[in-house]
Amino acid sequence: MKVVRSIRQMQKIAGSLKTRGKTIGFVPTMGALHKGHLSLIARARKENGVVVVSIFVNPAQFGPHEDYLKYPRPFAADKVICALNGVDILFVPAPKAMYPKGYLSYVEVEKMPDGLCGAFRPGHFRGVATIVAKLFNIAQPNSAYFGMKDYQQLKIIQRMAQDMNFNVKLVACPTVREASGLALSSRNRYLSEEEKDRCAVIYGALCAAKKIIKKGFSSVRVTGFIRRKVLAEITNARFDYVEVVDASTLIPVKRITMPAVIALALRVGGTRLIDNMAVNI
Amino acid sequence: MKVVRSIRQMQKIAGSLKTRGKTIGFVPTMGALHKGHLSLIARARKENGVVVVSIFVNPAQFGPHEDYLKYPRPFAADKVICALNGVDILFVPAPKAMYPKGYLSYVEVEKMPDGLCGAFRPGHFRGVATIVAKLFNIAQPNSAYFGMKDYQQLKIIQRMAQDMNFNVKLVACPTVREASGLALSSRNRYLSEEEKDRCAVIYGALCAAKKIIKKGFSSVRVTGFIRRKVLAEITNARFDYVEVVDASTLIPVKRITMPAVIALALRVGGTRLIDNMAVNI
Repeated sequence: MKVVRSIRQMQKIAGSLKTRGKTIGFVPTMGALHKGHLSLIARARKENGVVVVSIFVNPAQFGPHEDYLKYPRPFAADKVICALNGVDILFVPAPKAMYPKGYLSYVEVEKMPDGLCGAFRPGHFRGVATIVAKLFNIAQPNSAYFGMKDYQQLKIIQRMAQDMNFNVKLVACPTVREASGLALSSRNRYLSEEEKDRCAVIYGALCAAKKIIKKGFSSVRVTGFIRRKVLAEITNARFDYVEVVDASTLIPVKRITMPAVIALALRVGGTRLIDNMAVNI
Repeated sequence: MKVVRSIRQMQKIAGSLKTRGKTIGFVPTMGALHKGHLSLIARARKENGVVVVSIFVNPAQFGPHEDYLKYPRPFAADKVICALNGVDILFVPAPKAMYPKGYLSYVEVEKMPDGLCGAFRPGHFRGVATIVAKLFNIAQPNSAYFGMKDYQQLKIIQRMAQDMNFNVKLVACPTVREASGLALSSRNRYLSEEEKDRCAVIYGALCAAKKIIKKGFSSVRVTGFIRRKVLAEITNARFDYVEVVDASTLIPVKRITMPAVIALALRVGGTRLIDNMAVNI
């Protein structure tokens, strides 16, 4: 496995691979790799000649009071994980190279970031859309792999890539969960073991909610149900939101009659967790 | 010469050219081709294996009260001009294909569009940055060619391409002028012959201004000088602006001590003209 730190060098390698007819599968990450990331890498490995993983904790997607500085950066471990899982190139650019002095350009997707996480993290999805566009131009992938845990992010990146005419196939991969049902996240390492156990109720509540939706319950009743169930178990939790939204536009729905997604974000102590569940009727 | 209307087909052709090691020189235009465009095409022809010209009157860069609908579209003539000047592929996408239903994504360059033309055409440079990014993803050029007449546009595109890590070399080509000095522009065809003659004073004033700058005149005196000289000759002219700006940041300068550019926009009857002159001290 080759570790590449220079943007220019990564571009050269990608260009040369394309000229030689190799397909590039790309997994952009912020590091602190877990089995969710490994499922993306495995899928990329299966479908491409060359697998490129990037590790970059993107300052543009963190708000001024968020956890950019304390976000976990276990690079030595991440490197071993990549090497052991068939990654060919690990791209690790420096923040100063990605956002040099005088940097001024951003990709904005309108409307879709207005609700859900975007309402609580202003500018977050602008940072996400921008870094993904930049990384696509650098790694020049044929396919790129994203997890469905970050559902709003996935939909915004799909919209951005289509709108901007990126010639990249986006592959959405299912959320990977602990045995308890807790969705894997790099931020789970902020949780105590006891908090992790209690957080199993999140997936439990989503599964139960899916069932009552099929009985014809409205969004308000479903989200109320989830809130009560989760807060009864995780006493130090506070919800940012629980909503039922249209699966493609992310617009909240009242009566649930179309492909929808239940999406939620909550804070457990100082840790922000998200999860979601698709509901197809 | 091949005329391509489908985005997907253009992407396939570009991808296949890259795989075969061909270099692509790209000249994005809004059509109504004149000798300014021809100078870009000639340069692209000289430097690349394949020359791609796009013709697309980009709705996203026109304001609601601007000339999008009446912008000239002499496609038959443009096609002949391209065929006669060594263009290999003429890419002519439909507006509905470039901005389909549900389109939401835009590239924004901060600050640089705040002054000069951007102050009079809100959203214009967002439209420009967006369409250029989209076209780069479609035509996948090695090099792209832009005229220096649209100086603010050139600087914003350079910033955007660098920030977004496009692996495209941008080539800035000198403004092409009539014998009178009038900068060539597709919008010149809105002018009467008499107006065109009078407009020669614009270049005359810029050349004279360059001389007095070298004598140490301040920006205010230089721009006042240009205004008076032009308005004395073109009696139906009205300036949007005349400014002396830093050549790279586009920030207005008072004392002229660095590489600067005199930039102006004026309306002659209903026709908006722009021009500029570099001043290196």
